Amino acid sequence: MEYQEPQFFAVMQYASRAAGDVIDMVSGNPDWEPPAALREGLREYADASPDEFQYPPSEGLRELREEIAARRNVDVSQVVVTNGAGEANYLGMASALDRDTGSGVVLVDPVYPYYPGKADMLGGEPELVPSRRDGSLDVEAMVGAIDDDTACVVLNTPNNPTGAVYDIDAVRRVIETAEEHDAVVVVDEVYDHFDFGGDFESALAIDSPHRIVTSAFSKSMAITGLRVGYAILPEALVGGAKTRHMLVNVATSRPAQAAVVHALQETEPEYYERTRRLLSERIDAFTDALDAAGAAYTTPEGSFYVLARFDGFPGTMENVQRLIDEAGVAGMPGETFGSAREDWIRFALVTPRATEGANRLAEYFE
Amino acid sequence: MEYQEPQFFAVMQYASRAAGDVIDMVSGNPDWEPPAALREGLREYADASPDEFQYPPSEGLRELREEIAARRNVDVSQVVVTNGAGEANYLGMASALDRDTGSGVVLVDPVYPYYPGKADMLGGEPELVPSRRDGSLDVEAMVGAIDDDTACVVLNTPNNPTGAVYDIDAVRRVIETAEEHDAVVVVDEVYDHFDFGGDFESALAIDSPHRIVTSAFSKSMAITGLRVGYAILPEALVGGAKTRHMLVNVATSRPAQAAVVHALQETEPEYYERTRRLLSERIDAFTDALDAAGAAYTTPEGSFYVLARFDGFPGTMENVQRLIDEAGVAGMPGETFGSAREDWIRFALVTPRATEGANRLAEYFE
Repeated sequence: MEYQEPQFFAVMQYASRAAGDVIDMVSGNPDWEPPAALREGLREYADASPDEFQYPPSEGLRELREEIAARRNVDVSQVVVTNGAGEANYLGMASALDRDTGSGVVLVDPVYPYYPGKADMLGGEPELVPSRRDGSLDVEAMVGAIDDDTACVVLNTPNNPTGAVYDIDAVRRVIETAEEHDAVVVVDEVYDHFDFGGDFESALAIDSPHRIVTSAFSKSMAITGLRVGYAILPEALVGGAKTRHMLVNVATSRPAQAAVVHALQETEPEYYERTRRLLSERIDAFTDALDAAGAAYTTPEGSFYVLARFDGFPGTMENVQRLIDEAGVAGMPGETFGSAREDWIRFALVTPRATEGANRLAEYFE
Repeated sequence: MEYQEPQFFAVMQYASRAAGDVIDMVSGNPDWEPPAALREGLREYADASPDEFQYPPSEGLRELREEIAARRNVDVSQVVVTNGAGEANYLGMASALDRDTGSGVVLVDPVYPYYPGKADMLGGEPELVPSRRDGSLDVEAMVGAIDDDTACVVLNTPNNPTGAVYDIDAVRRVIETAEEHDAVVVVDEVYDHFDFGGDFESALAIDSPHRIVTSAFSKSMAITGLRVGYAILPEALVGGAKTRHMLVNVATSRPAQAAVVHALQETEPEYYERTRRLLSERIDAFTDALDAAGAAYTTPEGSFYVLARFDGFPGTMENVQRLIDEAGVAGMPGETFGSAREDWIRFALVTPRATEGANRLAEYFE
């Protein structure tokens, strides 16, 4: 046993123990209000009859699965409610590896570190394929990396940490190549509500028995702690995923599921537009301050992360700890996202103090 | 991939679709009120600040882990909060198999069907050892079954489905034998609050680096749907379990964790005594009616299940469906719990209609 443990919680812990004031831009924890209807849903649940405190169906509350199926335009039988996108990706990757068609797991570098960790835990062999300089998919490199030993490919769009939104034709090409080699593509779309240019298209538009889509309400409803996500699986894979879900978790927490049903039904589009506007403004202000700091950076098309590079200050864990202690700003080391962005540091713009953070960085590096 | 899918949800579904009125004694869903403080905890959480809607620590809220550690008299570092006992058992069994000391998983027959399903999913090889006629551990048979290829032994006390409470010396003997063969024993104590004779002793009393104890608040607080459980692991295994937990689930649902903290702090012992009394009375009434039906049955020392055997009517899925359709009573087929109790049907006494159910059975079989 030798899985890789993602370092998010470790960096957050380091930051919380620091002596001085630290602006936390480590993890993707939204800092805005969840929908009012989400809180209402929890209040209503608190007064529910005792039988509503018992096991929901293993695959999720029927009402929740129906709301998801209607929104994503899929059949309800394809939807499995999971403990956040984390479990959804675990089930998706396990479904791919359980087909016993190979052990390769093709990932895009920079990579969200849970993916190689899960691949390793599931007995797969992660292979990292660098994205293009701008974070977009290097389709030819991806196609070249997928072979008959490939079991699984994982894509994440809008992307964490690059902020890239993948072109749907690039995603289609990867899925077609996976089909040719009897591999399964898991497309993690948890940031689908944070698409600033309006260019994002879901992989659900690509009909394939080799395509799994995962998502969650964690980011869109600002509820990473409620752990409500889902996987949408092709017919041939949904049974195996449900069995694994049952054997690992039995079912997921019902108050959270009930609250999300209510929030889905009662929340106006304006709620999501407001957070998109808020983040757009933050990105502008943050990158302006990075300009002042003379840093290189990425401007996200989607998600809410900015990668920044400071001359002579690579994105190591050591340097991130120095920034926490000496600049009072906490980010994530680029080296924890594979090797393609080792020089960079990721900042999550989910704090009202994002601009203040950039100013502290400007001051520190000037 | 060929894991065994536990049939609980399938039988519940069959019962819910039946034409007539059916008394549901299928699954272990308590039918009584959760603690008042549990509902209070949910209400308070609904009004918490937005940051309390974000990721809790992966291993669980510190306050919850401290409450558990204090009650179980262990160090807080050993406690991992899980998505119910289901995930706790999964982590426990995975921790054992991840040591790569063998692939054998020794289980007691009759067996809670999630155990062989998990063993199979994790690449282990389940081996069933029959318990004694009265449900107690057949220590010599267990000791004989544990060898150098054994990775894991799973015990469940108070037991589902037999209602047996294992003698602590028998448990000690199994743990000592496991130690000799470098195997790990997972002791699932989720029914520890339902110990009618007062004879239950936790395996935590047996100090061993080869012993994992799992439990949950699902049964004791009547909240199977909230999914709050925990594993208590020896120092050498806790790190690996935390990493796996993080890679599978990231963290578990925070409103449920927060509500359980509040309920642990505010609930008087009388709450638990009341449910024990309620169940004792139900067991008496149910077994009296089974006497009238001329059935053989087990009288539980712990947990809340009764196994009953009706002449010429073995515990097959087909017969259980007949009972649902023709007698209006739903139980679980003995054949789904291994092979040692194939002639029996399990009834969960978690309905106020338990006695009515037994009367229906008496009428059907007379």
